[in-house]
This record gives sequence, C-alpha cells and structure tokens, in this order.
Amino acid sequence: MNITTNQDLIAQLEWRYAVKKFDSQKKISEQDWKAIEKSLLLTPSSYGLQPWKFILVQNPNLRAELTPISWNQSQVAECSHFLVFASKNQIDEAYISKFIALNASTRGMPPEKLAGYKKMMVADLVTGGRSKTISDWATRQCYIALGNLMTTVAVMGIDACPMEGIEPAKYDEVLNLLGSGYQTCVACAVGYRSAEDVSAKLVKVRFQSEEVFIRK
Amino acid sequence: MNITTNQDLIAQLEWRYAVKKFDSQKKISEQDWKAIEKSLLLTPSSYGLQPWKFILVQNPNLRAELTPISWNQSQVAECSHFLVFASKNQIDEAYISKFIALNASTRGMPPEKLAGYKKMMVADLVTGGRSKTISDWATRQCYIALGNLMTTVAVMGIDACPMEGIEPAKYDEVLNLLGSGYQTCVACAVGYRSAEDVSAKLVKVRFQSEEVFIRK
Repeated sequence: MNITTNQDLIAQLEWRYAVKKFDSQKKISEQDWKAIEKSLLLTPSSYGLQPWKFILVQNPNLRAELTPISWNQSQVAECSHFLVFASKNQIDEAYISKFIALNASTRGMPPEKLAGYKKMMVADLVTGGRSKTISDWATRQCYIALGNLMTTVAVMGIDACPMEGIEPAKYDEVLNLLGSGYQTCVACAVGYRSAEDVSAKLVKVRFQSEEVFIRK
Repeated sequence: MNITTNQDLIAQLEWRYAVKKFDSQKKISEQDWKAIEKSLLLTPSSYGLQPWKFILVQNPNLRAELTPISWNQSQVAECSHFLVFASKNQIDEAYISKFIALNASTRGMPPEKLAGYKKMMVADLVTGGRSKTISDWATRQCYIALGNLMTTVAVMGIDACPMEGIEPAKYDEVLNLLGSGYQTCVACAVGYRSAEDVSAKLVKVRFQSEEVFIRK
C-alpha cells in the first residue's frame, strides 16, 4: 500500500474489478484480514444501528453447498475469504435499548441523556412507517458496508467480487439464519485474482461524467 | 494522504464520523473534488449498469430550499459540496442497449458478442421479476456509491455526512427530477468539519466483533 496522492487512490479504484477467477492458492494474511474486519465494523449506518451480521464462510463443505445456489460461480469456493451480508429484518425496542446502552457505556454517559435519540429511533423504526420496511432499510445499510469493503480492499491491493447472483432464501437455510432475525442480502468473495482471469484485462465500462453528474 | 499500512487506513476510517457542523469557509479543492467524482464514477454496480445520477448542488438558493426538507440540518447549506444520489426507477431495453453499445465501443468488440449478456440483463431487469422492484435494486446500487464515497473521502482526509433524513419526494420536485426516470434516494454532505463540532470528539459506538461476525 502506498497511497499518497489522489492519483494513487484512483489507480487502485481503476485496478479493482469484479474478479471472475480467484487464485485459490493465495490467501489473505491474518493481519490483512483483521484490518478488513475492522473496516467492516467501522462502516457507517443509519443512526449508527449496524443492522447486520457479516458471515465469514471458510468451511469448504459449506462453500461447496453454497456454490449451486450462487449460479455455480467458482468464486465462492476459490476465493480466500467468503463473506455473506445478512440484514436485520425487524427492529424492536429491545434492540434499540441495547444500542443505547452500548452508546452510553462507550461514551461514559447516563442512558437517560440519550432518551431523545432513542425516542426518535423508536418512532421511526419500531412504531413508525419505516417499521414495515425494515429489511429494505437494513439491506441498504449492508450495501454501504459492501461499498466500504470494496473500496477498502482495493486500497489494500486485495481483490473482490461482489455477488448479487445468489439465492438468499436458500443461503438462509444453509447458513442457519432462519428465525435468527437476519436474512442474507448479498455476498462478496475476497482474495487474489488468478493470473488466468482474462477479465482482469478488460477496460472498465463507465458512462461519461457529463452523463452521470447533474450540476445545480 | 499517507496510507502505507493497514493501521493508516484504519486510522482514517476511525477518524471519519458523520459531521454535524461543517466549516462553511473551507472548500474542497478542485483537484480533490475531481478525484472524488472520478471515484464515484468508478463505483461498482450490478451488471455494471450504473443506475444512478449524482446531483451536485452548489447553488446556495437551492441549498436553502433543500434545508427545510432535510430536517433543517445545517450541513446542507454549510458543507463544501452537497451531493444527492438519485436512483433509476425503471430499466427498459433501450437503456440496456445503450449500455451494451458503450461496453462494445469501450472494449472494441462487436455488440453481437454481448448478446448473451444483454439477454440475461433483459430477462432479469426488464421482463423478469426484478422489473417490479427496480427502484429498490437501483437504490441499493446507490448505497454502494455512498459507501465508496465515504471511504474514499475518509482516505483523502475529507469529511462527510451521509443524510437519509431528507424528504425524497420533495427533493425530486426541487431538483426537477419528476418524469426524469430518476428519484432521490439519499444525500451526502462533503467538506471539512468545523472546529466547533463537538461530535468530532465522541468515541465511535460499534458492537463488538464477536457480535457482528458469524464464523462458519
């Protein structure tokens, strides 16, 4: 890693691509993986509520079970680390109270001081209109984590392949998520590209800036 | 910017927070803003379809109009650069054909070579089940861009405040998005924190790793 200029940073974002074939022999070091986990933990989320679980699947038998329910994509088995993002499907007052308690203890203040913050979250997510669409809301938060992950690993010079082409309901069964309050929303294979992955050489396809940005 | 170790990278992610008060006098340099726009353009998306517009709102009158429909948050007016993410609300065959044409010309291949890719996208997004939930799908893609943005600017030592507390339908009116095929989903204020922002000093509140990661 040697990011000292804007150009260095952009070069890494240009370098990344959705890996089609990983080098199954090349593993992310423990130290790098720890940094990746830390960056995931630090992901910003709505109200700071972190409505997610990050499931790291390293068991080869489980990876083999997930492959056919992932459009048979080889990345599931071949990547160094396979992450599944599960989003919370309901927010109750207990969850918010737990978060408030964590907030108060982390910041060394009495939970009563956070009563207004708590009330606002309950009114929005537990009793308000958004309570009906918690899994959509939580899934969007997971996508912030996915975006953060892809940029973080690109900066580190580590490859990834985001995977929406999975069968979430079947993932939930295999990963034992049924009844857990969390459900699979997306996955991401992380590791190192194979030298044989021809897609690494393809030019990135992006609309022109003028087409994407509206200036007001 | 001086990111050469994992610790440097994590330090930037620890440094970032959702800015409550920006220094309205401190503007992002043109060179830095160009890099931020480039990183947004490079955001990965489902099939590479980039179903978004990024609306940069710099006109102070418009910022003033947006403030009351943003829970009166001062960041809208005071930040250096104010970005609104709008997601596509429908995908038709014409959009996919345009993307395929861009893909073919960028990579110097005949569009016919991409017929299978095109067919798969049409079957999923235009005629398939997902056609009914395009704005959810596109909004999730915008959240990848939001996650990418927040990590990118943190690496650059630039501040941000993601803003879900906005009234999207009213934004659409003010920003003239009605009938455009795009709709506001989220916003992000970007700039530099004010020295007076006390929230900069608050410890970050995150669940323990053991609570967030499930290992299989």
